[in-house]
Amino acid sequence: MIGVTLGDPAGVGPEIIAKSLSKFNNQRLLVLIGSERNFAKLISDFDNADYVLSQCKFVDVGGDEVVPGKIQKAAGEIAVKSIEKSVELAMEGEIDAIATAPINKEAIRLAGSKYIDHTTMLAALTGTRDVSTVFESGDNLRIYFMTKHMPLIEIFKEINERSIYQSIRGAERCLRLLGISRKKIAVAALNPHAGESGLLGSEEVSYIEPAVARARREDSIDVHGPFPADSVFFRASKGEFDIVVSLYHDQGHIAAKMLDFYSTVSLNIGLPFLRTSVDHGTAFDIAGKGIANESSMVRAISKALQYGHAYRERFRSQ
Amino acid sequence: MIGVTLGDPAGVGPEIIAKSLSKFNNQRLLVLIGSERNFAKLISDFDNADYVLSQCKFVDVGGDEVVPGKIQKAAGEIAVKSIEKSVELAMEGEIDAIATAPINKEAIRLAGSKYIDHTTMLAALTGTRDVSTVFESGDNLRIYFMTKHMPLIEIFKEINERSIYQSIRGAERCLRLLGISRKKIAVAALNPHAGESGLLGSEEVSYIEPAVARARREDSIDVHGPFPADSVFFRASKGEFDIVVSLYHDQGHIAAKMLDFYSTVSLNIGLPFLRTSVDHGTAFDIAGKGIANESSMVRAISKALQYGHAYRERFRSQ
Repeated sequence: MIGVTLGDPAGVGPEIIAKSLSKFNNQRLLVLIGSERNFAKLISDFDNADYVLSQCKFVDVGGDEVVPGKIQKAAGEIAVKSIEKSVELAMEGEIDAIATAPINKEAIRLAGSKYIDHTTMLAALTGTRDVSTVFESGDNLRIYFMTKHMPLIEIFKEINERSIYQSIRGAERCLRLLGISRKKIAVAALNPHAGESGLLGSEEVSYIEPAVARARREDSIDVHGPFPADSVFFRASKGEFDIVVSLYHDQGHIAAKMLDFYSTVSLNIGLPFLRTSVDHGTAFDIAGKGIANESSMVRAISKALQYGHAYRERFRSQ
Repeated sequence: MIGVTLGDPAGVGPEIIAKSLSKFNNQRLLVLIGSERNFAKLISDFDNADYVLSQCKFVDVGGDEVVPGKIQKAAGEIAVKSIEKSVELAMEGEIDAIATAPINKEAIRLAGSKYIDHTTMLAALTGTRDVSTVFESGDNLRIYFMTKHMPLIEIFKEINERSIYQSIRGAERCLRLLGISRKKIAVAALNPHAGESGLLGSEEVSYIEPAVARARREDSIDVHGPFPADSVFFRASKGEFDIVVSLYHDQGHIAAKMLDFYSTVSLNIGLPFLRTSVDHGTAFDIAGKGIANESSMVRAISKALQYGHAYRERFRSQ
């Protein structure tokens, strides 16, 4: 069983989930978690509304009616409660994985949450220290992020031989937990042309090359690079590598979104259960209009179904 | 007429040009510039060798026979002479534009050249101070590079309100010289999520927003942004913008190469004539094997034919 949190009820989450459900023929494996009152109201506009509600198990977290497209405390409270409930169900073993619809930072702050996003909240609720983010895009591209939400300039404080070595090990662990049998890893370079042996930047020679050598030597990891960032993601998308270590947010994000803008999906690895997620926000500007694209949500649910059960088994036995 | 320089004769240049020629039905518009001895030897392996040589005008710069796949002085000398000859022909008005095959930095250095690449050599030979690089990829994506070949950390010294303002004006000038009637410009952000109003970086608020406002106010330029870099290139590829200002090399390069790895083409704007180029190097590892992909060369020649004549007219009248 897979839990699907509806996210902020004022955003596009409930809509893209309602649209996603008809894409699966195993809806009985899905547990929707959110405010049933708000969801029932929203999907009353859908042709297959009765069908949708009859097919899925729904875990209602209660909550007042919300206004679509607005940052509001009531919506933030429902979003937070949905996540908390999903973690409870996952820790009890009722569900194997969680696919999450988007939440809004400001709304959960109004609701009194001290977390800035899903990842930090899930890490705290499960007592997990080391949670990684992996993107999957297209048929083959998988990206491990060494850093994510920080100003670009701060990368230069984060990047050293040790942090890259740990990212390589983290990427290998992700492939292991996802059950990917071949584990060929590439590391993207930081500088243009991978620094051209130091002419265009020193980080490749000083940090990345030694880290790659260490991971090969000490851990027998099949890791390669650093490779120029403008070719390594393309090469991985053609199947040459199973995962690419991206050093900063936009490096991997640009690659993933140019390859498949609407179906890129984000995975959190390291929690006791797998969490998958859409790669977009609440899109308040189009919420309640029925025009949101559900592709990323469909992929997030698919990936949770694909990897979720085996992930939990491997996590327990590691 | 369009000049086509064969590049380093030990690289893939002559091969991809020979392969490109049959893709055009107006070969009589092309002037090949390079070492005829080396080219004749190379294309003797091609089925359509006699046809190729009979259709095109060839300007021979002489030179000794070279060994494929090796950095060598003789090859560097031919590469340099070909470029010098092409500039001479362009300045005399014999050709309107130049499409260039790749050269090798080390080989032209061995040949005594003090320039590191085509762009600096062409700027010096024509006495041009301000040469811009623009990429075209796919059907709609056009990218103007604010910076190119420098370590990533140096971006932070280059980025300020004035440099971004000048890049916006530079991008507008490129669209004008290329004859693009709509001139809707986007500026990519530097930080993740375009800095989230300062939470994830200050450059958007401090430099990019004021520069965009100034270009709109003082120059009536239809410029927008800063936009998150992981969506702006996708949006442009769908036709929303005519050009995107990329702040650093990999930002635009990753986007262009994920959209169309083999057919991205580079344009130099600002010289008295248009120069187009492949976006790859001499590929010595596969030179002489007959397996090089000519797509980018075909596009480079096509773009020179498409834009070259009108570019010259507009350049003269500006």
